[in-house]
Amino acid sequence: MKKSFARATLGILAFSLATAASAQVKPEDQIKFRKAGYSFMSWNMGKIKANLDGSYDAAQVTAAANAIAAIANSGMGALYGPGTDKSIGDQKTRVKPELFQNMPEVGKLATNFNAATTELAKAAATGDAAAVKVAFGEVGKTCKACHDQFRMD
Amino acid sequence: MKKSFARATLGILAFSLATAASAQVKPEDQIKFRKAGYSFMSWNMGKIKANLDGSYDAAQVTAAANAIAAIANSGMGALYGPGTDKSIGDQKTRVKPELFQNMPEVGKLATNFNAATTELAKAAATGDAAAVKVAFGEVGKTCKACHDQFRMD
Repeated sequence: MKKSFARATLGILAFSLATAASAQVKPEDQIKFRKAGYSFMSWNMGKIKANLDGSYDAAQVTAAANAIAAIANSGMGALYGPGTDKSIGDQKTRVKPELFQNMPEVGKLATNFNAATTELAKAAATGDAAAVKVAFGEVGKTCKACHDQFRMD
Repeated sequence: MKKSFARATLGILAFSLATAASAQVKPEDQIKFRKAGYSFMSWNMGKIKANLDGSYDAAQVTAAANAIAAIANSGMGALYGPGTDKSIGDQKTRVKPELFQNMPEVGKLATNFNAATTELAKAAATGDAAAVKVAFGEVGKTCKACHDQFRMD
């Protein structure tokens, strides 16, 4: 299982960063940490949306976009290790088992997501709300692309 | 309550960013999001420690340090709004109620923490493991300073 997983993720650097360091994290903690990452990103997406819909605070949007981009690009693929394809005890996951059988596709989705968050952070740094609006929409699309395929309702 | 909280946090920008945007987040979600932020930072602190103790992967350390710094500097003070001083339903919090009565002190601790994470990210970007080790230790101290005073065991 471990070996075939490693093979499947070969070359998908955007999604997998399964070094010795991160391999030590227990499956239930991997689920906990990845959920934490998505949760914290969602808070920051909400802040950016509120800024786009209401009064625009460039500093807040930049801080939020930086958090999203840094979390997205932190190597979250390492949190999808063996044994994390279903809920473990208190750690519930909505991931579909199919994700683990489609690593090349997941790698593409993750690459798109990571790139979109990087663009969002760049747009935020310019202070141009119109550019942020476009980049924000692109991030949302890349979130949805993965949710549609690999997240349970 | 709301007004006195706002007054207490005036001038503590490092910790509070209670704009209209973030004020819309329900207390239980504020607790959820702040726990998510700390949880995700702890994963990344663990990765950096593993790199310092074992073989050093500068790219992984940089990504981890960037995530920590961006989360720390994302305005988490807004997640300590009214009603978040105790557990709500499923959302358990270990925060001591004293935190909410000591905002100037919390502001100082948060400023120190945020600055230490920024220094860690800068050190990581140089690729100098010795510098990262020092900066990592400083971040740990600023985590502990707040935990010792304002987190239950």
